[in-house]
Parts: sequence; C-alpha cells; structure tokens
Amino acid sequence: MNIDVQLQVQELLARYVQAIDDDRLEAWPDFFTGQCRYLVTTAENVEQGLPLGMIYATSGAMLRDRVRSLREANVYEAQRYRHVIGPPLVEPGEGGEVRARTNFIVVRIMHTGETMIFASGRYEDRIALTGPQGARFVEKVVVLDSRQIDTLLAIPL
Amino acid sequence: MNIDVQLQVQELLARYVQAIDDDRLEAWPDFFTGQCRYLVTTAENVEQGLPLGMIYATSGAMLRDRVRSLREANVYEAQRYRHVIGPPLVEPGEGGEVRARTNFIVVRIMHTGETMIFASGRYEDRIALTGPQGARFVEKVVVLDSRQIDTLLAIPL
Amino acid sequence: MNIDVQLQVQELLARYVQAIDDDRLEAWPDFFTGQCRYLVTTAENVEQGLPLGMIYATSGAMLRDRVRSLREANVYEAQRYRHVIGPPLVEPGEGGEVRARTNFIVVRIMHTGETMIFASGRYEDRIALTGPQGARFVEKVVVLDSRQIDTLLAIPL
Repeated sequence: MNIDVQLQVQELLARYVQAIDDDRLEAWPDFFTGQCRYLVTTAENVEQGLPLGMIYATSGAMLRDRVRSLREANVYEAQRYRHVIGPPLVEPGEGGEVRARTNFIVVRIMHTGETMIFASGRYEDRIALTGPQGARFVEKVVVLDSRQIDTLLAIPL
Repeated sequence: MNIDVQLQVQELLARYVQAIDDDRLEAWPDFFTGQCRYLVTTAENVEQGLPLGMIYATSGAMLRDRVRSLREANVYEAQRYRHVIGPPLVEPGEGGEVRARTNFIVVRIMHTGETMIFASGRYEDRIALTGPQGARFVEKVVVLDSRQIDTLLAIPL
Repeated sequence: MNIDVQLQVQELLARYVQAIDDDRLEAWPDFFTGQCRYLVTTAENVEQGLPLGMIYATSGAMLRDRVRSLREANVYEAQRYRHVIGPPLVEPGEGGEVRARTNFIVVRIMHTGETMIFASGRYEDRIALTGPQGARFVEKVVVLDSRQIDTLLAIPL
C-alpha cells in the first residue's frame, strides 16, 4: 500500500481513539462522513452471517443522538477508557476509498483506580481519504471478540 | 531504517497476527520461508543462555504438522485470541534480511465471554523481504515474559 | 505530518519502551536531552490543573539518580514489564521540535508467572529530532489513567 495512505489511516485511527479516551465524545461523529455506517457487533454474529449488531447508526445525526443520550444517562463519567490499537492493515477499496483492519484492546479504569480489560476485537473500516475535512470513516464495523455486552452500550468503541 | 522497509515489516506482522486471531491457522506456515526457524521460549531461558524452548520448528512442513495436531486436538476452537503489537523496531540484518523486534500482548476470550491476558512478550524476527511471495519470516523467536506455559501449546504465537 | 518524522518518532518510542522492558535502565536517561523534563502524573491531576505529579525530574543527572535508587532498592528485579504502545499522533512543536501523543498499556509479570495490567495512559512528549545522538525527549509527561500509585515508584514508565 502507498506509504502516505498507510500513515493517513494510522493517524485517523490514532486521533479517533484518543478523542474517545479523552472523553471528547462530541467530536466523535466528526470522524465519520455525513452518510455513514457505524456498527458494533460480535465475531460470533459475523461468523453466523447475522447482520445485526448491538449498535447501529447510519448518519452523523444518529451518532450525535447517541452522544446526547450518553451524556444524559451520565454513565460515562465515572470511568475512563484507554484504547491501544495495532498497526492497521490497509487495502484499496472501491471508488477511491481504502479498507483497513485494525486490532484493538480497550481497558477500563474505574474511579477506584482498578483497571480491567473492557473489550477486544478488530475494526473493519472503509475510509474516504479526500474531502473538505480530510480522512473520515465511511463505514466502521467494530467486531468484538466477546459477546458479554451488558455494559458495552456505555461507550463509543 | 528505510521507510518502505519499515512499513513492509509492519504489514507482515499485522497480517500475521490477524491470521492467527481469525483462526486461519492453515495460512500460518505461509508466513515463513520453506527453510525457517520458529521458536517459542521465555525471557528467563534467553537470559540463562538456554537454547531450548517450548516449541521448535525448522521447516514449513513442521509448522503444518503442528496446525494439523491443533485441529485434531480441537482445543483451539473454544476460545478466541487477540494480539495487539506495538511498532516494530527494524534493523538491517545479514544477506539482505532485516531484523525486527516487536512487543506484543495477547488476550484470550473464553466462550463465556470472559477475557484475560494470555501472553506478553516480544517477537525477535529475521525477515526476507524479497521473494516470489513477498516478505516472510526466516526466523521467528517468540520470547514470552511468563514461564507459566501450561496452555501455551494450544496456539501459534 | 512528514512521513520521515512520523517514523523517527515511532522508532524513538519503540526503542524507549523496549529498553525499559529489557531492564536496561542505565540506558533510560540517554533517551532524554541533558536539559529535560520527565513527569509522571494522573489524568485527574491534569484535569484539575494540578502541576504536581508522583515523579518529577529536570535533568539527566536526576534520571540517573533515580535509576541508581531503583537498583539499590532492588525492587525491580522480581518482576518484568511489557509496554505496548499505539501509533503516535505527531504534530509540529516550537523551535523545530515535534509533539507526540501516544496511548500505552503496561502489563506486569510476577516471578510466579502471573500477569496483570500494571498501568495505562498516554505519553505527551516533546521531541528534539536533531542533535549529535539523534531523536531525544525534551519533555515526557506520562499521564496515568489510574490514581492507584502505590507501586508506581518502582519503574520508569
């Protein structure tokens, strides 16, 4: 893959996870194109061909609604999250887009200071590199390794 | 190090760990040259100068045998694994090869959904960049931090 | 950001964490410029505008003192550490320096083999790329997610 594209994708992902870890959730929808697809699902669902996931949004407006709900529910503030991602595997997509697969682990830090593994999985992204605001996600599929999902609704992944 | 080489190594490692995490074990031997060396050992062993490890293979045929055993033992399917690797540290090696050192953490996800740290350590790789099938491992030494090895035989690392 | 700069920063960080994980602590001060600032603090402190941290050093001599204390206290040897870092987010700084933000997780491996999450957080670095010894940290602020700090004094982060 082109070196410049590889690093653009890597930078987009680094900015994305740092925005979430900084609790700058209001900036989260801006990482997506206006028409987009954001899906959180499990590896089990994907293997069984089940299209549904736990979270599904198809526009920036839906993503913003979601952030508003999180803020009102106020569930997010008591803990911190930290994403660590591996190097993205980038391939050419359709219409000038690129596809990227990236492994991730997220740890959760309780307000007591206790730290635990919160989630692991892979991002399967379609990315538009050009546009007025630079690289953005056209589609982001978050494939979780675990199907324990009780608290997963609390945080963008 | 040359930028292009750095990214080639990073991509090889990203593809390698994603193949394992996807349970595409039959593709695992293809990441190695026909004549190769695959060794799983511990940091303690390395520091004491002990050449032996828990797993040792010197050809693609031995790696394929190993995958067959794993499939027959059927121990692998009940859980998932997720590798997260840091940026590889790449240096020139002998005969046009490169050497790469890469930190990794592997988490294991049980079928109940429970997630735990499975292994941590570093890869010490010798990589041939050119060849009919692109970049491959000539040697991969997996140096584990922990000497708790009971279940380690279950998975390529 | 310039591709070459991005990879220089990534390599500096990779070498830095591998030196710590290898227990080559005497090499640790050499990753900093002679006049430097090394601060370990918590996200909570940063958000409350508290300038103080748990560890603070402003010169290579102070860093070397710290390593000497660690060696004398002999607390470090019984366990191992493994850092995994994500891709650094690099931006231009002042006077030709660059700024980098990098997520990290550190696991600790006890001599019994038990592995646990030891720390998570982000590095906020100011880096001088040129100089007789290559890229070095002018400032390294280690922002920990957790305020559980009891054992943190044992290891450079």
